Order: sequence, then C-alpha cells, then structure tokens
Amino acid sequence: MGSQVWYRNEFQSMNQKKTAISPTRQENYPEWYQQVIRGADLAENSPVRGCMVIKPWGYGIWENMQYQLDAMFKETGHENAYFPLLIPMSFLEKEAKHVEGFAKECAVVTHHRLEPNGEGGLRPAGPLDEPLIIRPTSETMIGSMFSKWVQSYRDLPIKINQWANVMRWEMRTRMFLRTSEFLWQEGHTVHATDTEAWEETRQMLDVYADFVENYMAVPVIKGEKTATERFPGAVATLTIEAMMQDRKALQAGTSHFLGQTFSKAQEIKFQSETGDEQFAWTTSWGVSTRLIGALIMTHSDDDGLVLPPRLAPKHIVISPIYRDDAQKAQVLEYCRNLQRELTSICYDGRPLRVLLDDRDVRGGEKKWQHVRKGIPIRLEIGARDIAQDGAFMARRDQGNSAAVSRSELVANVVKILDEIQANLFQRAVSMRTQNSHRIDSLADFREFFGTGENEDSAEQGGFVYAHWSESDAMHAVLKELKVTPRCIPLSGEEEPGTCIFTGQPSTKRLVFAKSY
Amino acid sequence: MGSQVWYRNEFQSMNQKKTAISPTRQENYPEWYQQVIRGADLAENSPVRGCMVIKPWGYGIWENMQYQLDAMFKETGHENAYFPLLIPMSFLEKEAKHVEGFAKECAVVTHHRLEPNGEGGLRPAGPLDEPLIIRPTSETMIGSMFSKWVQSYRDLPIKINQWANVMRWEMRTRMFLRTSEFLWQEGHTVHATDTEAWEETRQMLDVYADFVENYMAVPVIKGEKTATERFPGAVATLTIEAMMQDRKALQAGTSHFLGQTFSKAQEIKFQSETGDEQFAWTTSWGVSTRLIGALIMTHSDDDGLVLPPRLAPKHIVISPIYRDDAQKAQVLEYCRNLQRELTSICYDGRPLRVLLDDRDVRGGEKKWQHVRKGIPIRLEIGARDIAQDGAFMARRDQGNSAAVSRSELVANVVKILDEIQANLFQRAVSMRTQNSHRIDSLADFREFFGTGENEDSAEQGGFVYAHWSESDAMHAVLKELKVTPRCIPLSGEEEPGTCIFTGQPSTKRLVFAKSY
Repeated sequence: MGSQVWYRNEFQSMNQKKTAISPTRQENYPEWYQQVIRGADLAENSPVRGCMVIKPWGYGIWENMQYQLDAMFKETGHENAYFPLLIPMSFLEKEAKHVEGFAKECAVVTHHRLEPNGEGGLRPAGPLDEPLIIRPTSETMIGSMFSKWVQSYRDLPIKINQWANVMRWEMRTRMFLRTSEFLWQEGHTVHATDTEAWEETRQMLDVYADFVENYMAVPVIKGEKTATERFPGAVATLTIEAMMQDRKALQAGTSHFLGQTFSKAQEIKFQSETGDEQFAWTTSWGVSTRLIGALIMTHSDDDGLVLPPRLAPKHIVISPIYRDDAQKAQVLEYCRNLQRELTSICYDGRPLRVLLDDRDVRGGEKKWQHVRKGIPIRLEIGARDIAQDGAFMARRDQGNSAAVSRSELVANVVKILDEIQANLFQRAVSMRTQNSHRIDSLADFREFFGTGENEDSAEQGGFVYAHWSESDAMHAVLKELKVTPRCIPLSGEEEPGTCIFTGQPSTKRLVFAKSY
Repeated sequence: MGSQVWYRNEFQSMNQKKTAISPTRQENYPEWYQQVIRGADLAENSPVRGCMVIKPWGYGIWENMQYQLDAMFKETGHENAYFPLLIPMSFLEKEAKHVEGFAKECAVVTHHRLEPNGEGGLRPAGPLDEPLIIRPTSETMIGSMFSKWVQSYRDLPIKINQWANVMRWEMRTRMFLRTSEFLWQEGHTVHATDTEAWEETRQMLDVYADFVENYMAVPVIKGEKTATERFPGAVATLTIEAMMQDRKALQAGTSHFLGQTFSKAQEIKFQSETGDEQFAWTTSWGVSTRLIGALIMTHSDDDGLVLPPRLAPKHIVISPIYRDDAQKAQVLEYCRNLQRELTSICYDGRPLRVLLDDRDVRGGEKKWQHVRKGIPIRLEIGARDIAQDGAFMARRDQGNSAAVSRSELVANVVKILDEIQANLFQRAVSMRTQNSHRIDSLADFREFFGTGENEDSAEQGGFVYAHWSESDAMHAVLKELKVTPRCIPLSGEEEPGTCIFTGQPSTKRLVFAKSY
C-alpha cells in the first residue's frame, strides 16, 4: 500500500547523486530530521538536558507564526496578558486528573538562593515554605485569577491569550517535537453558558486549521480525541492531526472544552441575569514550537529544509557573482537595486523579505547553504545576467532553474510565491490521500501496521479509518502495534459499521496511526 | 528648591474637587502609584509572592514597546533567538563577580517531578544531579553557546537578542518596578576587537535613549555607572536615567561592555586573521517591563494613567450617547463609520487604534474609566453631535474639551496625537530642568537631600550634579542620606572642581539622586 512516500528532491531530476542531507529520509528518517535542523541552522541542543537553543533561522519561522496567529486571535476578540511562570504546588492538587497528567513531569523550585558550599562551589539555600512548579500549562494559575475577575454575567466572556514558555520534564526528547522547555501560546476563556464555551472551542480549532493549512501548507484532519487521549481535566479535546512524510501522525494543535471542571475546582462563579449563582464554563487551546517540527517533516527533502513562503524568514535570496573588484562593484550595485525594488513589493500584507548574501564565500557553498535553509526563491546575478537585465532563478520546490528578466521577475514574484505555497500544500494533500485507507477487519489492521517492532521505520504507516468502540480489546491491540487513536473526524459522516476490535456496532470511523 | 513637582491634573482647571485616583500624588506617592495601576487595570498581584499578572491593558503597552524596540534592534543588525530558561548551577560558579551579584536571588530547581505525599497532597521527587537555576540573566548560558559558535574571525560579530522572562528573587517588590519575575529583552554580542564591542555598547545605549525619549516621551540622561554600580562582571556599564514625578531617579536601561570577562570564563576564543588565538569581546544590554513603571510615574496625574500616544494600546475611544433604541441604532452606525474612517489613517507606521466602547455602562462611569486608562483622545458622540456631523473631543493631557467637526478631526488627528506626544515630553523635560541642581559643598548636599529618614517623601529630591571621587567618605554620606550615584553623564564636559566629600581634585560632575 502507500505508493508515494517521499517527495522528489529538488535536484533529483538533474541526476545529482549526492544529497545535501545525509542520511536520506529513506535511509534513516529520524536522523535525517536532525540533520535537516542542523543543515538549516534552526536549533541545537543546549547544555541543559532536553532543552534546546532556537537559533535565528528557526526563531524567524516562529516569529512569523506568532505574527499571523496573534493577528487571528485578536480578530476573534482575544487579548494578550501575562501570568506567572511559577505555580504553587497546592494549585495542582485541586484537580485530580490534572495532577495525574502533569505531576510526573514538573520542574520543582524548592529554594530561593545559592550560598557557598564551603568547597569553592555553591549549594541551594533559603528553602521555600511551599514548593513552586514551573508551569507545564496555566489552567490552575489563570483559573485562580479568573475566580477573582468573574463576579457577574456582565464580566463574561473573558477571552485571554498568553505567549509563554512552559516546562514538561520529558524523558525522551527530540528537537521541536518534544523538548522539556518549549514556547507556545495558551488561550484561556470563560463563558456564561456551555453553548458559548463549545462555540469558542470549535472556533479556535478552526483558527488553528486555517493557520496550519493556509500558512504552514500542512493539511490537517479536524477531529475529537477519544476519552483516553483527552487533556487532563477536559470534558472534550478537539485536535488537528497532520501526516508527516514517514506517514506518522502529528498532533498539531488542540482546543479543549473544559466544561465546569476547572471552574468548580477554582470557584469561578458568577451571578446570572436572573440573580442566581452559577459556575462558569471554560476553554483552553494551544499550539507550540512543535509546529516547526511539523513544518520540517511535512515539506523537507533530502537536500534539506523546504519553507512555505508565507512563513519563510526570507522569501528570496540574491547571490552576486563576480570575478574581480571592478565586476564586484557593478554587480553589487545591480543587486542592491533589485533588492530595494523587490522589498517594495507587498506579499501577504508585509514587504517581501529579501536577503542579499554578499558574504565572501564560494558560490557553490553559498548556494547549498540557501538550499539547506529552504529559501523559496534563489537568484544568482553575474555580469552576464546584468547584460540581459535579469537573473538566474531557482525555486526550492522544483528541480529546474532558468534565466528570468528583471521585469518578468518583479511582475510575477508574488504569483510565484503563491504557486510554491499552493504546490507544497497540494503535494502534502496528495501524499496523505495516497496513504489513507479504510480498513474493515482486525486482520487487515494488523497486517497494515505490522508488528510494531520498528517504530521508526517508514516502511509501514499511514492513516487508517476504521470502525471502533472504546474497549480494553482495542487498547490491547493498539499497545501491541504501537498505534494510537488520533481522532474522530468532525467531518466524518455517520455510517453503520462494526467495531473491528469487538464486533460491537459502530456509527463512525476513527483515524488510527503511528504517531509522534 | 524645585518649584514644580506635579503636573496639573486634566480636570484641575475646571475646579473639580475629587480626583479619580485616591490618594493623590501629594498625599501618598507610592500608594498613588499602586492605585493608578489598579485604576487603569494594568496589572495585579498574583498568588505567588513578588510575581504579578500583567493584564491586557498593561500587556498592550508592552506589546507596543516590543514592536518598536524589536524593529530598532533588527535595523541595527540583530537577530532574535531563544535560549533555555534553566541554567546549571555550575555555570554561575565560573565568574566570581557574577555569582556575587546574583546568587542571593536565584530560584533553584532541585526536583523534576511530584509524587503523592501519603496525606492526600504532593511532594517533590526525582532529585536532580545538579541543581538548575531559573535565569536571572543569560550571560553564562548564551556565553556557553557562543564558545561553540565562535571559531574564526569570520564568525564575528554575532549579534543576538532574546525576548524572555527572567527571575530575581526580590525581598521587597513593587509592581513593574521590581518583581521577582519580569519580562525583558537581553541583547548579547561577540566581537573581534574591543573597539567594536565598545561601539556596540554605545550604539545600543543610543537606541534605548531614542526609544525612551521619542516613544515613551521620557527624557533621559545618558551616562556611565561608577564602579560600585556596575553590572556584576562588566568592565563598564552605560545607563539611561530618568526623573520620576517624585523627583527620584529611575534606571531605564543599561548597556554593558563586558570586555573579556565572560569570554575568559567561558572560553569564547577565535582564530584571528593572522592566525593567532584570541579571546573575544562581548557586550550585553537590556530593558524590561520596568519601563512601564517609568512611563506611569513620569506622565500620570491624580486622575490616573496618561499614555504617550505612540505606545497607547488605543489612541482614541469613541463613546456613543443615546436615549432610546431608535437613537442607539443611528448613533452606533455613525460611530462605526467614524471608527472605520479613523482606522484607515496611518499613525507612526500603523493604522490608528480606535476603540468603540458600546458597552451598556453609564456615560459618567465610562468616561472615568477611559480617563483612568489614559487614552489620549476621547470622543463622545450623540444625536446632537451627529446633527452637526461632528463629535465632542477631550484630550487626556489637557483640561479642555470641545466640539469638533468630523472633517476637522479626520484632517488633524495625527497632528493632535503628535502634539500630545510632544507635550508630554516637554513637560517632563521642564520638570527635570526645574529639579536639577549644581551643588558645590557637602553642607548644601546634606541640606538638599535632608536626613534620608523618609525615603518615600516627595518633599525633597531631584538630580544633583556635584564633583566627586570614588571614596569611602562619599559612600558613607550616600548611605546615610539614602542617595545613590546615578551616572557620570556622557555629555558632561570636563570642568575643574573639587570633590565635595574629600576635597580631592575632580574633572567631571556626577548625578546624585534618591532612586528606585
């Protein structure tokens, strides 16, 4: 099954033998992922276990993500605020399921100063009366503030977002996908009715899907998590699920309907219009720097990162080519001039981001750096190009490159970027389509997912739509095969069927996959 | 001395007796400050000692500060990145002065999970091999990465900025001015020569001064800190110092020339063009949410916050006024239309931010909320105003309000905002001028600063320019009077004189003040 796995490399059609990234996706997908990150200089490991340093090229992608998401949050009526990093341990104790979900991965602050240890070093001193934990998420802290801010129905709704760092002490980490500290946004809202809170939960899932599909060029399935996969303390968790090139699923964002769980744990009460006291209804929703991992694994090839133009730190790079100082002056002037002209063009509501790379580095080395960094359009300009008033242009999503006149380039550059954006999305959609299957028997399900022994293998995988029922039988098979229930698609139509694990009647298919 | 202390209130000329903020600046300045924050809904204390919640109106100011500063950093060739929150304790041990400066206020993480304590609660578990501290600043962490990134002179300069939260466990906190956790940016750069590092240090001080004067409308003195006031580990610390309305000084930003201190502690070495190995030269510089405190204390009056337009979350608020539903529909339509028209006007490179406040709240209450929030221009629009195709306009920096035609408003609104911005700056400059003094004897110095017993009193204070020499005698007097050496002004001309503390010869005056 699953005919297409990898996208063709940019240079594959040119009979190039050596790839810029080694190993290739086919040879070792997890290691290829690390090498793409390294090759594009996106991030690296830090001296602190499980924490990474996000370098300028990686952070530039995050800044563009923040810019767009922040605008979308504000358009839907949310305001930003900032809440404390540290949460008293006792706050976690108030909601049993929440504790269960996070207690095992909390960084705990127990002291508030250091003192000499008598051997030339330091030791912790000033023990705290109550330990504080570094926020793994902020429902409890923000909830405690909401309980003060909400008195009357007139105070509702409250729609807050926070951009922040959070900490979940992970035992097995992988850059961007799973790190002990990560950056994210967490939305927290309070409403007078369950209907309104549900609308908010769905609206924010739509915002995420819109962003991930139209900016990241990553197609997603909108769905609801099964009971065992819910956020700790949530009544319902909505999710968007994407397929990576190794056909594994990645959860790209979640939006939680929290019901009255946290309002009861933290006394978020209000006086209704009719004068009686009611518990409020809350939601929370978040996406994180994990999205950068999803972006890398969806679009990149064996030559490195491929960036969707709408999130690229630079849309275009210009490399001047010259033999001597006389040529250099002329070429650089032409390049600067073109850079200015391109920068005056508006793309996606902001000026085009154009890098003029005039570093004293060999042309070949420079070109491969730009390829590995995934810059959508590369321009090389030498004396010959200038004579024709043009440039040599290459697109990161295609193998071909060609001479282009300056006027043509200026007139078409936005269209070309839109084409690249659409092309990346389309090939991801088609890869997902080719690797999505309806399966109607347990035997086929087992055969499809194999033994589960080699979980990093890309030989097997994809999305399986199958009838199901919440049952020990299902979880036993999933555990054995290292497969997870991803979501019940919101768009899925009712369809009579039989659970492949138990034979019970079922009305909707669920998406199963190996996952990150 | 010091004839002018407080700015006149917006409504003072109208013989209004009651102020919107109680107590007034005159009655109790520190408490007035807290009440301005509360009245404008900028922030409030959190359940965690010394940590505050920055609410949407306060965070909106910070977002505008970030937007402008970030653009200025990028214009001067800096890139953003992100480094880990947690720093191994051993990193601090490497630089003796740095430890001395920060060890007493470090939050220390010692465990990485929580477990049931057997009594229904939780306790820390999973002790770490080495304690981690929450960054009080990131020289050591970023330096350890620099030591990997810097190999050759070709790798230099590296110019990085980070937007982040930091933690300094303070015993006595005050919202925005001194909190255990705060938000800031920290710039970190590495250079091949001391000259280049010095240029960077000065350039970033200029960027800060430009921002604080031209965006915050707060005049500053650029100067160098004396030895005892330097950043722990720095060779030189440059500072910008501002005068608050109680005539105390507030350090608004610092830029540090770190020499080779950190490059030697962390082995940031490079091969020079001639092939020998050299230690690099580093700088660091930062401003924080403390700037919001400076902004509040510089401009606000006894009716609450006064915002410089360039940083106001909203430039204009429109309050519709109507008697019944028929009027309401007509008035709201007119207001929405005007809001759209005003929003299409560009101010300071972005669209005007116009709030239409159609909440069902009494007109008087609403007006005072807008006054306390410091919105630069308030418009009230009722049926009578619409008949004249205009609005009733009030400026937050003046006592008068008047009818204005719509066409006049639209044509002049940018000019009016520029006027308000200039007006706030001018009155702060003039207040500082009136409260700056040259003093040439210890007796006058003592008389000016009084006994120092009542440090929160605004009865005494201002900037004193006096000849000085670094000496125990000086520090003894300063300690007694609770006065601090603020800076040696960079613009100060050489001038022969005598140290007022020791009688030693001196060539430059230093600025002394009580301070935050």
